[in-house]
Amino acid sequence: MSASLETWEQLAQLIAGGDPGRVEAFLDGLSGEERARAVSRLDEPSQSALLKVLGPAASAELVAQFSDAQAVELLEDLAPPDAAAIVDELPSNEQADLLSAMTRDEAASILAQMSPDEAKDARHLLKFDADVAGGLMITEFLAFPVSATVEDVLRDLRENAAEYSDYEIQYAYITAERGRLVGVLRLRDLVLAQAASSIESIMIARPLHLTTQTPLIELKAFFAEHAYFGVPITTDEGALVGVVRRVAVEEAIGQRETEAFLSVSGLSGEDELRTMPLRLRAGRRLSWLSINILLNLLSASVIAVYQDTLSAVIALAVFLPIISDMSGCSGNQAVAVSIRELSLGLVRPGEFLRVVWKESAVGLLNGLVLGLLLGGAAALWKQNLFLGLVVGSALALNTLLAVVLGGVIPLMLKGLKQDPALASGPLLTTVTDMVGFLLVLSLASATLSRLV
Amino acid sequence: MSASLETWEQLAQLIAGGDPGRVEAFLDGLSGEERARAVSRLDEPSQSALLKVLGPAASAELVAQFSDAQAVELLEDLAPPDAAAIVDELPSNEQADLLSAMTRDEAASILAQMSPDEAKDARHLLKFDADVAGGLMITEFLAFPVSATVEDVLRDLRENAAEYSDYEIQYAYITAERGRLVGVLRLRDLVLAQAASSIESIMIARPLHLTTQTPLIELKAFFAEHAYFGVPITTDEGALVGVVRRVAVEEAIGQRETEAFLSVSGLSGEDELRTMPLRLRAGRRLSWLSINILLNLLSASVIAVYQDTLSAVIALAVFLPIISDMSGCSGNQAVAVSIRELSLGLVRPGEFLRVVWKESAVGLLNGLVLGLLLGGAAALWKQNLFLGLVVGSALALNTLLAVVLGGVIPLMLKGLKQDPALASGPLLTTVTDMVGFLLVLSLASATLSRLV
Repeated sequence: MSASLETWEQLAQLIAGGDPGRVEAFLDGLSGEERARAVSRLDEPSQSALLKVLGPAASAELVAQFSDAQAVELLEDLAPPDAAAIVDELPSNEQADLLSAMTRDEAASILAQMSPDEAKDARHLLKFDADVAGGLMITEFLAFPVSATVEDVLRDLRENAAEYSDYEIQYAYITAERGRLVGVLRLRDLVLAQAASSIESIMIARPLHLTTQTPLIELKAFFAEHAYFGVPITTDEGALVGVVRRVAVEEAIGQRETEAFLSVSGLSGEDELRTMPLRLRAGRRLSWLSINILLNLLSASVIAVYQDTLSAVIALAVFLPIISDMSGCSGNQAVAVSIRELSLGLVRPGEFLRVVWKESAVGLLNGLVLGLLLGGAAALWKQNLFLGLVVGSALALNTLLAVVLGGVIPLMLKGLKQDPALASGPLLTTVTDMVGFLLVLSLASATLSRLV
Repeated sequence: MSASLETWEQLAQLIAGGDPGRVEAFLDGLSGEERARAVSRLDEPSQSALLKVLGPAASAELVAQFSDAQAVELLEDLAPPDAAAIVDELPSNEQADLLSAMTRDEAASILAQMSPDEAKDARHLLKFDADVAGGLMITEFLAFPVSATVEDVLRDLRENAAEYSDYEIQYAYITAERGRLVGVLRLRDLVLAQAASSIESIMIARPLHLTTQTPLIELKAFFAEHAYFGVPITTDEGALVGVVRRVAVEEAIGQRETEAFLSVSGLSGEDELRTMPLRLRAGRRLSWLSINILLNLLSASVIAVYQDTLSAVIALAVFLPIISDMSGCSGNQAVAVSIRELSLGLVRPGEFLRVVWKESAVGLLNGLVLGLLLGGAAALWKQNLFLGLVVGSALALNTLLAVVLGGVIPLMLKGLKQDPALASGPLLTTVTDMVGFLLVLSLASATLSRLV
């Protein structure tokens, strides 16, 4: 194989060769990143061919390593029976993640082709929101009756070692009548116990547990407080139905933070990957840009009203974009701090007054400094103190406004159950642009005789 | 206690009362978020008093639940001996995290007061960067000689159960001469083995391991590939020196993403919390804003050059801020996608051509749509087709430029080992503002007779 070929081209050649062993050996030799990149660079027919060559089990292992967006891209190109065979091999919470990221039709046609047991579990998990315990839990866990002995449990573990090999058996859960959760057994305690002991004597009774409707933010708090690998999830009646693992919560929170980061630029919903079709990528970005251009026309209409003042003092036109940009920057810093404090739970959506108080001090200080800088530059350039005063005081006042608004808007949006990362920026800059233009141009109108 | 008091006020009263039991019981009754919020709202003397009342062990548990920024704030207010007693109780990697987040002097005075063993470990870990294995590993792990039997290991576990209670004993590590790592023992295999078996017969020989200099991104890839809870870390000579746990890698990556999110708004370095002193908060934000205002003056100087054109067609002044803002938005979307693809490893810093190719298609399409919208609005408003053509084609061309540059700049910065999230925005908008203003105003100059 020529060394001058790109990794993905080498992979494409191996896939065309059709030898599963060689393809798997090649993929195993790559780092996780190289693998993700190489697979994403293949064209669609080669990607589908790759999953066919590997077979369902190895494909599932491969798919599980990728981001949801990339995994869905891969599966959507397959015939539903082929996709279903791969989804069958995934853990239950990943099944639900991927199916819920597909269109309703695609998910339905894959579910129809899955093995009945797996499909039933997946359908059950799909009923839950992605950010409550029910949507994050796995249904593969060890459960033993409370009447068992240490020997019973050890025997079961040895006999079913093959089936359990994919399970994370840090804990086994102990249940009574109708699946009611009564205890948790740590593997380490099993190690240290006598064979004849009853499970009841070594289990942790009345274990902490959460219900299927527990929100992500409480799961996060739970794992911050307790150094557990997982928490049992019960129905409202206390019947054990799943386990949420610490890693699932951490993954979900990482995903949330990524979404916040992307949606600040108006990239909402799923990840955009450059391997996605052009129409999808351009369209998603455009929907947010179109709203933005309307908001921009709205704020710029302030300038149109003051055309006469602007004609008289054309130098002002130089400062309008600067005031717009700087106020946006100052305000967005406060937005970022608020979004961060909201996500850490350090501020509640209702605490306007606290944020106004804390931000107005920063806004006043930075407004004064920036106003002096820009006003000084304006005064020096045109040798006109009044021009400096107009421009400088407009920027100072508008910075104060932008910083306070930037701090408060995310709280307001959060209180209204909107995504603060997506909408805060455009809302903020529309208001600060309008007020900024109004301040410069009305102050200039009022002192026109001194400026010309 | 009055129910009308805020949580933190109730906490402050209890601290003043000085009864450790009541303070602990109150904190235990709060959720993780309420606890973080209540403690952060206390004034400095009350925070210090809280840690004194709780004592070192309980304080360490509390401190470990907070973000690094908040934990450092708490510790810095204490006298070094009190802070040292708390740091002594933290796991080794958290000791290193907090000490490295402090100023050099503060860290040194705490290290001087720590117990000699703990301080030695912490100093050793502090030598490593925070984002290589050496900076992420813990030095508390189980190690047994390769000559041991299952019975030896079980006896040791039972005898030292108290000491090990804080360890995560998912794995024990097996070493030979000079601490050389030769095997890993899974707890589950210990459970399933006969007492007389040799450890060598049930351990996984030649286990996967990484070295202290392995970068975070490779650790991430390692855990994406392998469903392990931790990976042993050795020196270059193969001696076992620590363990990096999966959770430590996930935390570090979450922290990186948060930093990227904040630094887009020019909030570099550590988290800003609103409980920090005003001067620190305002100063950090201002350092980035000051650079930005200079860049803004640079780009606006283009407008100054074209004052005559602008005086002749004052309507253009309305569109300058719109073109500046819209190009910035379009470009920042491409920046966000590039930063995301870089962090997932889906694109390498050298792949300019691929990004230019992928982004120019989106830029062309969205530029056409936005140009038509804005040009149409301009033509209708002034009933002048040429004004529409000037404004529309300037925005279309500048959108194409902004999207391509936005895609490429993060790769460039990454290639130069700079933080793409911090510097991409200002770099991008300076160039697109200059070119945007130049396009509008030079096109207008060229067609001046048609515009007035």
